[in-house]
Amino acid sequence: MPDSTNPVTPLSEEQCERLLENHTLGRLAVSVGAQPDIFPINYAYYGKKLLFRTAEGSKLAASVTNPLVAFEIDGYTDTSAWSVVVKGDARLIDDEEEERAAERSGLDSWIPTIKMNLVSIQPTEITGRLFLLGSQPDIRI
Amino acid sequence: MPDSTNPVTPLSEEQCERLLENHTLGRLAVSVGAQPDIFPINYAYYGKKLLFRTAEGSKLAASVTNPLVAFEIDGYTDTSAWSVVVKGDARLIDDEEEERAAERSGLDSWIPTIKMNLVSIQPTEITGRLFLLGSQPDIRI
Repeated sequence: MPDSTNPVTPLSEEQCERLLENHTLGRLAVSVGAQPDIFPINYAYYGKKLLFRTAEGSKLAASVTNPLVAFEIDGYTDTSAWSVVVKGDARLIDDEEEERAAERSGLDSWIPTIKMNLVSIQPTEITGRLFLLGSQPDIRI
Repeated sequence: MPDSTNPVTPLSEEQCERLLENHTLGRLAVSVGAQPDIFPINYAYYGKKLLFRTAEGSKLAASVTNPLVAFEIDGYTDTSAWSVVVKGDARLIDDEEEERAAERSGLDSWIPTIKMNLVSIQPTEITGRLFLLGSQPDIRI
């Protein structure tokens, strides 16, 4: 656990995976050229992959043509906060077996629009941090 | 307002700015080469700029050597959700007047570590969306 002398501690990969399983809203960062962009998405973490849907022809669908993505979830209370960041490779799912797995994952969308594309992110790195919240010390810029 | 036939509506720039002023926790996306990364940050929106602090020598401090960044805040209830995305140019603040302005902004950090770098993001684009939440229609992939 973090304390005032060590206010940030890493989470284990297992802790990160539990947090990923128990949440449904995250943010996906993509790069289009050197310009990053962020999208809030509903996701499922299932079979060690992140799954989400996106409308065909959308800005997000176009963005994941660069397969390198980062994904983040976080949460906080009055005294502590945590975040989990997943880096990985995104790709459109075009395999029936994977599509059925996604249906079993309980993946749901934020909005009731028909969404035809299913995207899978294969994690290459999962990291998490727990922060003890507090005031800045006296030294300030 | 969105409805079931139009579940996503844009927010005005003024609405986005009010949301930015009234929140303190967001996520910053940066690109290192083609690899995006995301960091949860405490920020202030002050004088039409986003301000945040980061530890000297940190991964985040290194990342903003590519000045193109994206920043996101969001919120949700059982029936609706919103997000605001700011794209802009990040730079380290090395001007005393700007540093004093940042102090006036009430900017605070997530954690009590001494943080020596102050970063300013000059927005080039501010967009926001309001989502009506609901189930997917019958058509599924």
